[in-house]
Amino acid sequence: MTQEKFPGVFLTFEGIDGSGKSTQCRTLAETLKSHGHEVVLTREPGGSAGAEEIRRLVLEGDPDRWSAETELLLFTAARRDHMERTILPALRAGKVVICDRFADSTRMYQGLSRGDLRGAVDQLHALMIGREPDLTLLIDMDPEVGLARAKGRQTAEERFEDFGLELQQKMRAGFLSLAQEFEGRFRVVNGARDMAAVAQEITALVTDFLATRG
Amino acid sequence: MTQEKFPGVFLTFEGIDGSGKSTQCRTLAETLKSHGHEVVLTREPGGSAGAEEIRRLVLEGDPDRWSAETELLLFTAARRDHMERTILPALRAGKVVICDRFADSTRMYQGLSRGDLRGAVDQLHALMIGREPDLTLLIDMDPEVGLARAKGRQTAEERFEDFGLELQQKMRAGFLSLAQEFEGRFRVVNGARDMAAVAQEITALVTDFLATRG
Repeated sequence: MTQEKFPGVFLTFEGIDGSGKSTQCRTLAETLKSHGHEVVLTREPGGSAGAEEIRRLVLEGDPDRWSAETELLLFTAARRDHMERTILPALRAGKVVICDRFADSTRMYQGLSRGDLRGAVDQLHALMIGREPDLTLLIDMDPEVGLARAKGRQTAEERFEDFGLELQQKMRAGFLSLAQEFEGRFRVVNGARDMAAVAQEITALVTDFLATRG
Repeated sequence: MTQEKFPGVFLTFEGIDGSGKSTQCRTLAETLKSHGHEVVLTREPGGSAGAEEIRRLVLEGDPDRWSAETELLLFTAARRDHMERTILPALRAGKVVICDRFADSTRMYQGLSRGDLRGAVDQLHALMIGREPDLTLLIDMDPEVGLARAKGRQTAEERFEDFGLELQQKMRAGFLSLAQEFEGRFRVVNGARDMAAVAQEITALVTDFLATRG
């Protein structure tokens, strides 16, 4: 899975809960389509029929039903299925794939709550996924703004969001730290502005990136 | 998970379908109990509530619903849960764990149908499971004998058994090859005899092994 070169482009969005990732994904998809690109909009966890089934297994039920290690393996299985069935076929066909969360969210959520797992996260990724996004857009904002937005649309399934402000602040710092670690593919966007302004900056960044790819 | 030393003993049974593993597991469990051991009898895939759910996800439905790689990740997730919830607590408490199939079955089934995956199987095991059985009993027999036995108890779930004689012959050879690779922990038992004779040999082997462990 690692070596193959594709004509398509793989874009991911990352950021804390309520940062506006999903809205910005949809907006970017519409903009790129209007520019003539073929676009596949997808998300994690989930994004393929099998991955959605695994997602249900991970997210529903008692929060302690899986250990961090088992959860990591299940998320990696879901990601593998998502890559095989949704992302790679689109990249092979020359499409632009926009994915709402990807491996950086795993590095963040699993690695932050269990820092000793970060090595395992990266080794599993290298072994079974083997591909990073071409470009990752981190929508950065103060967690207090993000939490206020997220509470408006919370479902029973979203137990991952029930951790409160302190953890969200750690997540924000963690994402910014990932952006430094992988600075070549990360672009940090200030999400604490009105959505149109954020969308405009993202469009400019992505258009530039696509131009450099030729 | 790797380094910890336990007072218990971890025994596994391997062998082709119909080789009599399940019967011999039960018989050995009864014998060891009658000798005063505390015994936990378990099996893979499955063996814990979470692992059974993953097992259902893997085994039911269209045979092509998962790639070999995704299936390997799901089996490893199930094994991790099984280790954490069933096997390790019993070993910590000084019990004898008897497990019907374990990682060697994965090496065999995944590695044989997709030989290029054997490296990934071993790396995943080292990374996320980290423990081999103390002793593995391989019940070896001619696949024609095994298939005739297996057909008597086939369920819809057991699609893994629908591969026919040629594959079973490869499996047999594969298991024997694993027994050479891990000769320190494998004991090969001729399963093409009446069950009482097989059970007697297994009891003798395990009793010897437990004696050397003190």
